[in-house]
Amino acid sequence: MASKPEVRLTDQQRFDWLRLVRSENVGPRTFRALVTNFGGARAALNALPGLARRGGASREIRVASVEEIEKELIAARKLGVRFIALGEPDYPPALWQIDSAPPVLALRGHAEALHKAAVAIVGSRNASAAGLTFAERLARGLGQAGYVIVSGLARGIDQRAHLASLETGAVGVLAGGHGKPYPGDAVPLMERMVESGAILSEMPIEWEPRGRDFPRRNRIVSGLALGVVVVEAARGSGSLITARFALDQNRQVFAVPGSPLDPRAEGTNDLLKQGASICTGPDDVLTALEPVRSSDDLAALREAGGEPGEPLWGEQALYGVDPESTPRTQPGDEFEDMSGAPYRSGGEAQAARERIIALLGPSPITLDELARAAEAPARAVRVALLELELAGRVEYSGDRVALRAIAD
Amino acid sequence: MASKPEVRLTDQQRFDWLRLVRSENVGPRTFRALVTNFGGARAALNALPGLARRGGASREIRVASVEEIEKELIAARKLGVRFIALGEPDYPPALWQIDSAPPVLALRGHAEALHKAAVAIVGSRNASAAGLTFAERLARGLGQAGYVIVSGLARGIDQRAHLASLETGAVGVLAGGHGKPYPGDAVPLMERMVESGAILSEMPIEWEPRGRDFPRRNRIVSGLALGVVVVEAARGSGSLITARFALDQNRQVFAVPGSPLDPRAEGTNDLLKQGASICTGPDDVLTALEPVRSSDDLAALREAGGEPGEPLWGEQALYGVDPESTPRTQPGDEFEDMSGAPYRSGGEAQAARERIIALLGPSPITLDELARAAEAPARAVRVALLELELAGRVEYSGDRVALRAIAD
Repeated sequence: MASKPEVRLTDQQRFDWLRLVRSENVGPRTFRALVTNFGGARAALNALPGLARRGGASREIRVASVEEIEKELIAARKLGVRFIALGEPDYPPALWQIDSAPPVLALRGHAEALHKAAVAIVGSRNASAAGLTFAERLARGLGQAGYVIVSGLARGIDQRAHLASLETGAVGVLAGGHGKPYPGDAVPLMERMVESGAILSEMPIEWEPRGRDFPRRNRIVSGLALGVVVVEAARGSGSLITARFALDQNRQVFAVPGSPLDPRAEGTNDLLKQGASICTGPDDVLTALEPVRSSDDLAALREAGGEPGEPLWGEQALYGVDPESTPRTQPGDEFEDMSGAPYRSGGEAQAARERIIALLGPSPITLDELARAAEAPARAVRVALLELELAGRVEYSGDRVALRAIAD
Repeated sequence: MASKPEVRLTDQQRFDWLRLVRSENVGPRTFRALVTNFGGARAALNALPGLARRGGASREIRVASVEEIEKELIAARKLGVRFIALGEPDYPPALWQIDSAPPVLALRGHAEALHKAAVAIVGSRNASAAGLTFAERLARGLGQAGYVIVSGLARGIDQRAHLASLETGAVGVLAGGHGKPYPGDAVPLMERMVESGAILSEMPIEWEPRGRDFPRRNRIVSGLALGVVVVEAARGSGSLITARFALDQNRQVFAVPGSPLDPRAEGTNDLLKQGASICTGPDDVLTALEPVRSSDDLAALREAGGEPGEPLWGEQALYGVDPESTPRTQPGDEFEDMSGAPYRSGGEAQAARERIIALLGPSPITLDELARAAEAPARAVRVALLELELAGRVEYSGDRVALRAIAD
């Protein structure tokens, strides 16, 4: 396969990416919109305060400080953590494909483990003995067949799957930062995992994980994998969220059947009713995934990207954006607000913003519906939404957007 | 619904049907071919010896004697058993639809139970506690929803399903005769079942069931039902044979999931992989069967049949055969061999028989393939096969026929 020149961020760009991604109200979607609109993280950082203000923020948006990021970099070095930006060669190609791919991943361990075909194995924390044994056999069988096993480091099924794949490739995803490894009892396991596998986090190094970080993390677990196997899951459990993400990400979902009288099988049996593939052993997964694994999709993805040495073009190229088709600043451009070229706001965007606020309600509607109803140019809608999002006034779920009940 | 005149056999016809069905090498398929070809059982009985001889039987075919049938009728009366011929009003309409519907059923209990929509629940003899509990809940739930529960009276899942449906409608099918109820430990259960439900058998009253009678019996269990639920089944178990019959009979197959580590779930999990519907409770079955149950198919079937008082026409009509289109004897016709009218054999059939013998081998081929290869008129092929079957030289599996390795 012809190898294309690789896109890597400069140290300064990486620093700016971290600052941008650690700033208030900047999620993966907003990050992408900012970088593609402004041509790079530096310009976006400069634009942030003005954007949020014009979106109606009740107070100044919190932009991550240089000191904060310097501190994180020092902590990372101590822990052996390095940062990979979306689109860089080390970034896991499968994860790159998902809508809300983290702009920056903090990695402990070996990036090679992120480039082999992977299967996620997830399940209950309070797993049954049979569930644990099954998870172990499955992880071992898939590992021997060349798959890396991804999971969420939780007690029960997750940890058993990690343990059984230590020698063949184990990847864990934290809900918090590397400096606050959770759960604590998994620390010795994590130390063994990084010897040949990897631990990933998208959160600031010293981030203590809260409840809502776990479902968010689960999109990375499924996004890293070609398929997700749910071994045991009660109704409403986190493993089902992972399965839901997997479906949204066009990953294959497998469920392990169980007795209808076992509450730990209710979730997996439900998945089977909803069309998940039944998994009673590694062969079911191998048979189903072999065509995906052998396709050139992942390889093709690696071929994308722009030329090195053109930092701003490069930053857009990481997202697969053609810089010629995107209004962007020139290298070195800095501006305090959005009134100047090349980002033209003013009356058009202002009008769009007001129409959008009037159109939005607490029920999510699709961006398409919104754009049609707003009768404004697509770019004006995009910018207005970006401003509103940075101001914390709208929130997304998938490709739907709604007014935030209470701005926080 | 307009009620059509019902077809009932006269006592003499019923006697002849029993004699014919109890004669050597006369299975449901041959029985049907004989009655439709000869217009009635009496004529078929007279023709049997000649047919078998011309088919190449090595010895005289055993035709059930008048004494034998008289004895069976006396035994039946003592046990409270009565006989229902295929197509008579009491015959279970769902069973009538299957290819190998028993020409005569021996019934203990209430025919009404055979006319309500039914679900078969089958499974392991050495069931798990969870499997038994599930079978009980399922039978109770489906019973309360108005379904009769059919099963095979075996220890484990079968008996538990019967027990849980005693009050709502329980139907059991014996592998042997009513005079040799098997398994013996189910006799008290059977006594309770006949109070409002039914026990059926197609075998002679005093028949001691042998191994091969059980799979054969299973086609009746599935044939009586709109759907079959397999609760627990090891690989290669009898419940899977019932599921196979159900598929062949266009019945819906449900399987209860179980842990991949439980050998009793291997069969049901395999069924799920092959496309069976997952069943974790009565609702899954109710939802799937409601459209079938509410259709008029069964009612329409009941409307079929000829006029009473025309015995031979009536016997054909029970099979839905138009007597005008079928060569048949006249009422009262009797003949010793097949050389005379109206059944014309001779050179044409003889030639067909020889070609067929030459074409057949130990591997089953379809009747269509055989008829094409034989290049003989369809009727000649049919008669030749009938003769060969009565001579014990060919055997059927589904719609395929093969030479019997060793005539028995």
